Amino acid sequence: MSIDQQIISSLRFVLGEGTHALHEPRFQGSELRYVQECIASTFVSSVGQYVDRFERELAAFTGARRAVAVVNGTAALQVALQLAGVEAGDEVLVPALTFVATANAVHYLRATPHFVDSSPETLGMDPIAMKDWLKHIGERALDGTRNRETGRRIRAMVPMHTFGHPTDIDGLLALAQDYQVQLVEDAAESLGSFYHGCHTGTFGLLGTLSFNGNKTVTTGGGGAILTNDERLADHAKHLTTTARKTHRWEYIHDEVGYNFRMPNLNAAMGCAQLEQLQDFLSSKRRLTEKYLQAFEDLPQVRLMTEPAGCQSNYWLQTLLLNEAIADQRDAILEATNDAGLMTRPAWMLMHQLPAYQQCPRAPLTVAESLAKRIINLPSSAGLA
Amino acid sequence: MSIDQQIISSLRFVLGEGTHALHEPRFQGSELRYVQECIASTFVSSVGQYVDRFERELAAFTGARRAVAVVNGTAALQVALQLAGVEAGDEVLVPALTFVATANAVHYLRATPHFVDSSPETLGMDPIAMKDWLKHIGERALDGTRNRETGRRIRAMVPMHTFGHPTDIDGLLALAQDYQVQLVEDAAESLGSFYHGCHTGTFGLLGTLSFNGNKTVTTGGGGAILTNDERLADHAKHLTTTARKTHRWEYIHDEVGYNFRMPNLNAAMGCAQLEQLQDFLSSKRRLTEKYLQAFEDLPQVRLMTEPAGCQSNYWLQTLLLNEAIADQRDAILEATNDAGLMTRPAWMLMHQLPAYQQCPRAPLTVAESLAKRIINLPSSAGLA
Repeated sequence: MSIDQQIISSLRFVLGEGTHALHEPRFQGSELRYVQECIASTFVSSVGQYVDRFERELAAFTGARRAVAVVNGTAALQVALQLAGVEAGDEVLVPALTFVATANAVHYLRATPHFVDSSPETLGMDPIAMKDWLKHIGERALDGTRNRETGRRIRAMVPMHTFGHPTDIDGLLALAQDYQVQLVEDAAESLGSFYHGCHTGTFGLLGTLSFNGNKTVTTGGGGAILTNDERLADHAKHLTTTARKTHRWEYIHDEVGYNFRMPNLNAAMGCAQLEQLQDFLSSKRRLTEKYLQAFEDLPQVRLMTEPAGCQSNYWLQTLLLNEAIADQRDAILEATNDAGLMTRPAWMLMHQLPAYQQCPRAPLTVAESLAKRIINLPSSAGLA
Repeated sequence: MSIDQQIISSLRFVLGEGTHALHEPRFQGSELRYVQECIASTFVSSVGQYVDRFERELAAFTGARRAVAVVNGTAALQVALQLAGVEAGDEVLVPALTFVATANAVHYLRATPHFVDSSPETLGMDPIAMKDWLKHIGERALDGTRNRETGRRIRAMVPMHTFGHPTDIDGLLALAQDYQVQLVEDAAESLGSFYHGCHTGTFGLLGTLSFNGNKTVTTGGGGAILTNDERLADHAKHLTTTARKTHRWEYIHDEVGYNFRMPNLNAAMGCAQLEQLQDFLSSKRRLTEKYLQAFEDLPQVRLMTEPAGCQSNYWLQTLLLNEAIADQRDAILEATNDAGLMTRPAWMLMHQLPAYQQCPRAPLTVAESLAKRIINLPSSAGLA
């Protein structure tokens, strides 16, 4: 049997017949009731109890001191980076293997993404490769670290917890401190993922979440900024609500803000989703067990499991093809999708996108190898 | 009786007892049913039938060839200006009397807002004052018109239809053509407002709408781009959906896009709201009639009515105080709000905000006078 047929057979063993989406949301809780209450209150928009509640519950679940709900994960990251001090002309270290939003958020601030390599163990920013690279490219300066080739300040690094697997945060935090670079976590994919017992997105100065429709928990569209710094949280709230000063009627905006608040309607759905998060996580973990079993006799592929000391949310189940069958990737994608089993490859690497081809970058050997070999499998909660 | 007590008495004549918000949304149609269908379909996010339907129905109602639903009015304007060719370093003519989003959208594109005066008849951009100003400041160049003082290209003008009253579009279109400046309409406040029989937002190269919670029709948070140019509409859709190329599985983004799409959940609410738009407009028009009657014996104030040849949506009812009692504005705001009748003044003028004080500007005599004299009254549909 060809490898694509073997993979389909393994998927069918776990998923049974029928078609299966890559990641479908699941609404079996109080979504409709909360949305109904929200509509009945007429507070569907910029203010409302569900936004406050969603923020409180996100903070409680993640252990962050504060959470600020916003319109999506991209907006969250843009504002988090701005609050971390990223300015026009700076560089920001970003994994080449990520969704385009990570690089775009940097670009919106008129800063330049600087792409770095991934670890084959976590799929995220590799602190060992980064250490070598910073030794090579980083020049200590009064205001932190500069890229000795471009002369630009390297202001921040943005590790992303790929498909929900926590990256090696300790190693990155040490480098960030050593080089005086801010660490902002893109935890868009990792709600429910823990690194050494603490939730992803709570290690850096700020972290960000996403509640897009394909995420573990969805608000239709949405995101959040996490931080343990009250002052930064207040500023995040201010910036994302047009920077309007509190006044009974005057419309005074004391800086250039954004219309980035999450509508109460979407937060109502989010509150209901959060109540089911533990169930979603358990189900996704069970699915991993089943996939492990299904693929154990297939030596050409390896299912990604959580890194040591970590708890992954298993947002997207990930199959890594051996180098020897990497050239079969598209055939496997074709066959599985034809069979109604939705799979997808990793994103095109950031340095290969037209808009970012000219950006500075480290050697990207691992990311380039991974991008050829990653296949995400149907991963919805409720499949197991 | 003092003027504030007289105004309260007139408001009570129309509104009766109790407290009255400035503008409350009204959900008496199929909101809950559509939202329920949306949740049941699991398509709550980036794609879904309600987004498509909302866009079709917006196009049909406004008469624009195409409508592209986005996350809010600010995002709509940012993208519309980008599509109109506004580039970093350009100037964009913007009324000083507007909500901050108009200026912010220009700023996000690294362009500079250039503030111009308003007409006392429409409260919007005054083509007569603009003509004098462009004669004074505008220098014809190969690439359009330059500001002879700053040397920057003046790329676009953004009339805003204040509180729903159409501005003098014909006069502005003539100037835009004469000076080779693009016209992009900020119709955030004017869904349901018509200028000489055509809907606001359909005259310029592009126009934008807002469906914020305080607008005539709400989606919780939302906006739309209108245009008669199919190519621009396709590009608007592409840019606002992360510029991802259509492919069965690859994630290739061919330019720097935005995560600005409207979630299907919010569009579901929007479809239900649009079905009630004619009722909302009729109710708001009846309210104007009642306010006109209530204030007819108060010579110190004048209720704004639709400009000649126009049909206003009467989004926010607007009282203009005579110059003689302009110094009573804050006392009136205080007394009415204390009485549970929510009123508010115009926005702080853009050139007075800290972020925009250094921007170029025309003489703003009328805007400055209006800002001291405008008081918006309770305006919700359903009050009459």
